Amino acid sequence: MTDETDTVHTPESAHEGHEHLSPDFVRAVLELVEAGEIEAAREKVEPLHPADIADLVELTPGDQRQALAAAIAGLIDGDVLSEMNDWVRDELIEALDPHEVADIAAELDTDDAVAIIEDMEEEDQRAVLRALDPDDRAAIEEALSYPEESAGRLMQRELIAVPEHWTVGDVLDFLRKTEDLATDFWEIFVVDPGHKPVGTCALSWILRTPRAVSMSDVMKREQTLIPVEMDQEEVALKFQKYALISAAVVDDSGRLVGMITVDDIVHIISEEAGEDALLLSGAGDGDINEPVRDSYLARVRWLIANLFTALVASSIIALFGGAIEQMVALAVLMPIVASVGGNAGTQTMAIVVRALATNQLTQSNTVRTIRREILVALLNGGTIAVLLGIGAAVVFANAALGGVIAAAIVINILVAGLAGVLVPVTLDRMGQDPAVASSVFVTMVTDSMGFLAFLGLAVAAGLAG
Amino acid sequence: MTDETDTVHTPESAHEGHEHLSPDFVRAVLELVEAGEIEAAREKVEPLHPADIADLVELTPGDQRQALAAAIAGLIDGDVLSEMNDWVRDELIEALDPHEVADIAAELDTDDAVAIIEDMEEEDQRAVLRALDPDDRAAIEEALSYPEESAGRLMQRELIAVPEHWTVGDVLDFLRKTEDLATDFWEIFVVDPGHKPVGTCALSWILRTPRAVSMSDVMKREQTLIPVEMDQEEVALKFQKYALISAAVVDDSGRLVGMITVDDIVHIISEEAGEDALLLSGAGDGDINEPVRDSYLARVRWLIANLFTALVASSIIALFGGAIEQMVALAVLMPIVASVGGNAGTQTMAIVVRALATNQLTQSNTVRTIRREILVALLNGGTIAVLLGIGAAVVFANAALGGVIAAAIVINILVAGLAGVLVPVTLDRMGQDPAVASSVFVTMVTDSMGFLAFLGLAVAAGLAG
Repeated sequence: MTDETDTVHTPESAHEGHEHLSPDFVRAVLELVEAGEIEAAREKVEPLHPADIADLVELTPGDQRQALAAAIAGLIDGDVLSEMNDWVRDELIEALDPHEVADIAAELDTDDAVAIIEDMEEEDQRAVLRALDPDDRAAIEEALSYPEESAGRLMQRELIAVPEHWTVGDVLDFLRKTEDLATDFWEIFVVDPGHKPVGTCALSWILRTPRAVSMSDVMKREQTLIPVEMDQEEVALKFQKYALISAAVVDDSGRLVGMITVDDIVHIISEEAGEDALLLSGAGDGDINEPVRDSYLARVRWLIANLFTALVASSIIALFGGAIEQMVALAVLMPIVASVGGNAGTQTMAIVVRALATNQLTQSNTVRTIRREILVALLNGGTIAVLLGIGAAVVFANAALGGVIAAAIVINILVAGLAGVLVPVTLDRMGQDPAVASSVFVTMVTDSMGFLAFLGLAVAAGLAG
Repeated sequence: MTDETDTVHTPESAHEGHEHLSPDFVRAVLELVEAGEIEAAREKVEPLHPADIADLVELTPGDQRQALAAAIAGLIDGDVLSEMNDWVRDELIEALDPHEVADIAAELDTDDAVAIIEDMEEEDQRAVLRALDPDDRAAIEEALSYPEESAGRLMQRELIAVPEHWTVGDVLDFLRKTEDLATDFWEIFVVDPGHKPVGTCALSWILRTPRAVSMSDVMKREQTLIPVEMDQEEVALKFQKYALISAAVVDDSGRLVGMITVDDIVHIISEEAGEDALLLSGAGDGDINEPVRDSYLARVRWLIANLFTALVASSIIALFGGAIEQMVALAVLMPIVASVGGNAGTQTMAIVVRALATNQLTQSNTVRTIRREILVALLNGGTIAVLLGIGAAVVFANAALGGVIAAAIVINILVAGLAGVLVPVTLDRMGQDPAVASSVFVTMVTDSMGFLAFLGLAVAAGLAG
């Protein structure tokens, strides 16, 4: 990999490897800011791509961010803000005057302007809206009237829609004449007189078609229309499934009201897919830039929920206090049974949550998936049971103990496999996000069942009692 | 949300809600196939979008797939195969004759053809390559010569590159005249006489520019070039960061050799982001369509690794056998300390792994992130310690026991927070994927430390021992 061919738009010295700004670059800029050498700092930052300026602000420690922002004020424009981590952006925006925010929002497409404004406090939001000119304000207010994370928030109103009877030549002339167009577009929408979409036309087809041909002969009639209320996760799945570059957004009456382009969707695909790992672990939807207070509240709730499941498991142990007193080996071995079960359950659960999120698991294949996971659980359970059973029998010189722990492992991994499918599928059927609550339930099942099966079998086998 | 505006290209009756094929539709098709009513089955499947046909095959139980494939043979074309789950596709392809695979590959863009061929056994792969015409064979062989998951595998060779001195009119005439073009393209690359890219031009700019203007005046000189060896994850991050629709791929000498378009990247973004949840849970990169044998091997390895960490933790318990015999309450409570620590560690680890994957966590902010996580851990630890300490003191009527468990919780959550950052960051610095191995280490630390802190403090406090 040769660095000079990597990316043309950023001075190479600013980058560490291929992706990040180098720590040296960040430090150099911050030292200039601290020394008051504003001009020199600006000169270093100016050639960066907006996405890299956004990274620079994110990498700057919180207490130095306002100083940096002040130093490079004019360089933090709408493009930079729309690339920035939400938490960092909100912090910067809070320090700005509503008029400054309005100026930034006015230069952006509706979707990017909405993204910046939607998280502001209501009062600040109103102040920014008042400072906008009436057209921009109306567009943003309309977008804000749609639910959060819906297609209506994501779409931009700037798009090209032409009537069916136009020819390719008409379209070319129209595009060349019109000054004030959406900056980037990849498809042209063809609409009927009621402004309902009847087809789309990729720009490459228009370029390759003689001027005299009618749009209705070039366009593709099959198209994916996005209802304005559709959840962004579903929108992202449609873009993925049908390999879309842009799509028309329609209101309840089927009229074309906006366009969503794939570059706004890649962030959502990445967020929605990455979020499951965070949700499954109980870390909320936070990241390393989330304020400590929010992180604490999100995580402690989860820890308390898990504390209750641990108490349930521990009350099962309490039932067998007598057995443990007689045979301390039980206390030594019991966490292993619970832990292996928990791991097996988590594996299945992660697979199932992902399959639900990508629409791979539907009613058509639920039963098949359960059967599959039981089979995998039997194989896994058998393997671990043999290893651990022999190990325990040898170490404690007690064959019965080996048999008991082997049986308990098989039972717990089987239960874990079942719970790993049934818990997320049930939550999904109930309309809940399976990534959010599954692991609390699965862990409770595998911990409790691990202790119950092992200690119960030990008593039943007469090892202790 | 109105269903009739949802998607135009699939008969509504086939869909359940917005996304999946309904179970009734799948069942109806399979019943027709089983009854031998091939024509009727084909008629039902024919109007579906390729992505939906792919879903239909995935939702069909394994033992009925070949019958379905035979019934709708002509309908499973390259577009359907390139949308299909890898495991299911490989199974279908194995049943095909090399000539049939070659016919399918020939009609696809290089990237899609490579995706279908790359997972075949070497012998079958050679048979397919022999059946291709020399041009297609050379293109695919070249792609296969690049490392797996590299830009060279992802790119298509079909693209539009024009010399700098051409005018917009030259480009339009060239496009209208040339029959055999890449089916979809969104940007035109401008190259110098050595075929090195010097700029790109979005089609919308060409459409809006008068014919006489030179390409060198319309094109954007700043562009993101992708080295042919770059890993697909890095390629995906570049597309996200710079909101790219397509990008030029260059070889070591900087010559333009191919193009990657965003519709091929959205799958990778989703896979790479979603894969972390699976890797963290030890489920490999599998899904519900993975053969049971592969799932078993991937998962049992993980369970065995975790078994060893559980043995370490359990050997710590064994050190305190005497204490447990004297005070069974210790055995009842010790799993809680380990479990809460494990949960807290997993939270931090998930956040850190995600931040590493999205390049948010670099050397510039590692120390800051560690400080942040220690702060969150102190808050979480304090809260849980108070709850559990009071609870244990009351239930067991033993204030010292409450104090011991509270102190052990604070220690373990602190250690968990530290391990949750340090383990993935260290693995990342060592060039390992932090998602793969982090949780084994973090769990080992939190389990062992949980037992050690709790039992050790109990003995030190004179509760038992």
